[in-house]
Amino acid sequence: MSTNRPTDERLSINQISVPRLTIRELADACVAASIGHVGLWRDRIQEAGLENIARIVRERGLSVSTVCRGGMFPYSDAADRRRRRDDNRRAVDEAATLGADVLVLVCGAPEQNTLEDARTMVEEEVAHLLSYAEERGVPLGLEPLHPVFAAERSVLVTLEQANDIVERLGCPPGLGVVIDSYNVWWDPKLAGEVARAGGRTLSLQVSDWLVPTHDPLHGRGFVGDGVVDVASIREAVDGAGYAGPIEVEIFNREIWELPGEKTIEIIKRRFREST
Amino acid sequence: MSTNRPTDERLSINQISVPRLTIRELADACVAASIGHVGLWRDRIQEAGLENIARIVRERGLSVSTVCRGGMFPYSDAADRRRRRDDNRRAVDEAATLGADVLVLVCGAPEQNTLEDARTMVEEEVAHLLSYAEERGVPLGLEPLHPVFAAERSVLVTLEQANDIVERLGCPPGLGVVIDSYNVWWDPKLAGEVARAGGRTLSLQVSDWLVPTHDPLHGRGFVGDGVVDVASIREAVDGAGYAGPIEVEIFNREIWELPGEKTIEIIKRRFREST
Repeated sequence: MSTNRPTDERLSINQISVPRLTIRELADACVAASIGHVGLWRDRIQEAGLENIARIVRERGLSVSTVCRGGMFPYSDAADRRRRRDDNRRAVDEAATLGADVLVLVCGAPEQNTLEDARTMVEEEVAHLLSYAEERGVPLGLEPLHPVFAAERSVLVTLEQANDIVERLGCPPGLGVVIDSYNVWWDPKLAGEVARAGGRTLSLQVSDWLVPTHDPLHGRGFVGDGVVDVASIREAVDGAGYAGPIEVEIFNREIWELPGEKTIEIIKRRFREST
Repeated sequence: MSTNRPTDERLSINQISVPRLTIRELADACVAASIGHVGLWRDRIQEAGLENIARIVRERGLSVSTVCRGGMFPYSDAADRRRRRDDNRRAVDEAATLGADVLVLVCGAPEQNTLEDARTMVEEEVAHLLSYAEERGVPLGLEPLHPVFAAERSVLVTLEQANDIVERLGCPPGLGVVIDSYNVWWDPKLAGEVARAGGRTLSLQVSDWLVPTHDPLHGRGFVGDGVVDVASIREAVDGAGYAGPIEVEIFNREIWELPGEKTIEIIKRRFREST
C-alpha cells in the first residue's frame, strides 16, 4: 500500500463496474457513499435520455469524469467513414452536454484494413474530430488498450503510440491520453511514457489483472485482487502531473452479478487500501 | 499471398502442433511428407529418452529447429535460482545432444517479484547461462511472448526488449531472438525491431490469431485462419537476414484433437498458400 494515498474525493465509479444500476441509481449510490464522480457509457445515456441524465448528475452535484466512448475509427469506405464521423460528433455533443472531463476514444479494430493502414486512419480521424471537439470544449482522450484487444477493439495498444499521435498533432490542448492500469501494466516502457504524457493524461482508470487469466475481456478484478501494482502506476501518473479523478472500471461477469451497492463498497475499500 | 514464397525445405513442425504423435511418429510423418525439420519439447524428449530421440532424428536425416524451452528465470531465493540454473544447463545439454539450431528461452512469469525486478533477473540469468551455452555450441534465443502472457509466462513481451537485452550483453554470437507471429503481430514497432534483430533472429515461428478471441493460450489458429498477415512478417524477417526454418507452432485444443497426419497436411498446404 502506498503511503502517499490519493484523497477520497478523487474516486470515480465507472458505470460498467455496476451495470445492474440505472444511471439514476448509480448517482444516488454515489451520493450516499460520498463519491463525487461517475464515468458514463453512451448506450446507457441514450437509453435514459441525455437531458435527463444531465439533470440527474447536475442536481446531485456529481461530475462526469468520462464519457465512454468515441473512436472506432478504421473504416471500409467513404460512407462508412461518414457514419463513424457523425457518431463521433454525437459523442462529443453528449460529452459537452454532460460537462464531461474527457471523451474517451477507443480507437477501433482494423476491420478489413491492414494494421498499418488502420493506424493511419486513427490518426487522421482524430485530427478531423479535434476541431469539432475543441469548439465544444470537450477534451479527447486516446486510450491504448491491452494488445490482447488489437484484433477486435483497438489498434492503439501502447501509451507510446498514443503519445506519438498527440505529439505529431502538435500537442493541442484538447487532446491527451487515458491511462488504464489493466491495459498498460505489462508495458516495459510504461514509466517513461507516463512521464512523457505528463499533464496530457486526461483520465486514470484502474482495475486489476487476475491470475489465472481466464477471460481477458470480462475477467478484470477489483484493485488488489490481481498482479498489477496499481498504487505504483497511480503514483507515477500523479507524479507526472495528473490530479484528476481515479475511475474504477471493472469488466467482470461475476462482479456484475453483485448488488451495485456492494460493489461500490468494495471499490471504496480497495481505493483506500490498494490505490 | 506472397509472390515471394519460401521454399518448402524451410518448413518445420513444432511438436506442440501435433501432441498426439510421439516424437518417433512425428519424425516418420515428417519424412513421409518431405518435411526436414522438427521443433521438440523437453518434457517429451525426456519422456522418450534423450539418446533415443537423438538417434531417431539422426537416422531420418531430420534437423531439430528448436528445443522448447529454457528460461523461466525470475526466482524467489538463492535455492530457487540454483534449481532454475541447473535446469537451464540441462536444457542446453539436451539441445547440444540434438544439435538443435536454438534453445528457445521463454523468460518466465514475475512470480513474487515486481515486473522491473523480474526483468532485471532475466537479463542477469541470460548473461549467466550464456557462457555455458557458448561452450557447448548452443545458440540461445530470447522469445518475447504476447503481453497477454506477462503475468503467467513471460515478462519479456516485446521484440524491442529482446533486442535491448542482446545489445546490452554485447551482441554475442550465441545469443539472438525468436520471432513468433502470434506473439508479435500487434506491435506497432514490429517492422523496426525485426530490421534491428537482422541476422540475430534465430528462429521464426508462425501461427495465427483467431477472431473472436476465446482463449489466448490455447486458441491459436492455422496460418490463414486469423487476422495476422503472416506472409508480411515472414518476408520482413527474411528481408532482415533470416534464412532458417519456419516452424509452425499451434496451441489449439481443437486442432490437437485432429489426427497428426491431418494437421501436418493442413500445415503444409497453408505454408504454400499463406506463408
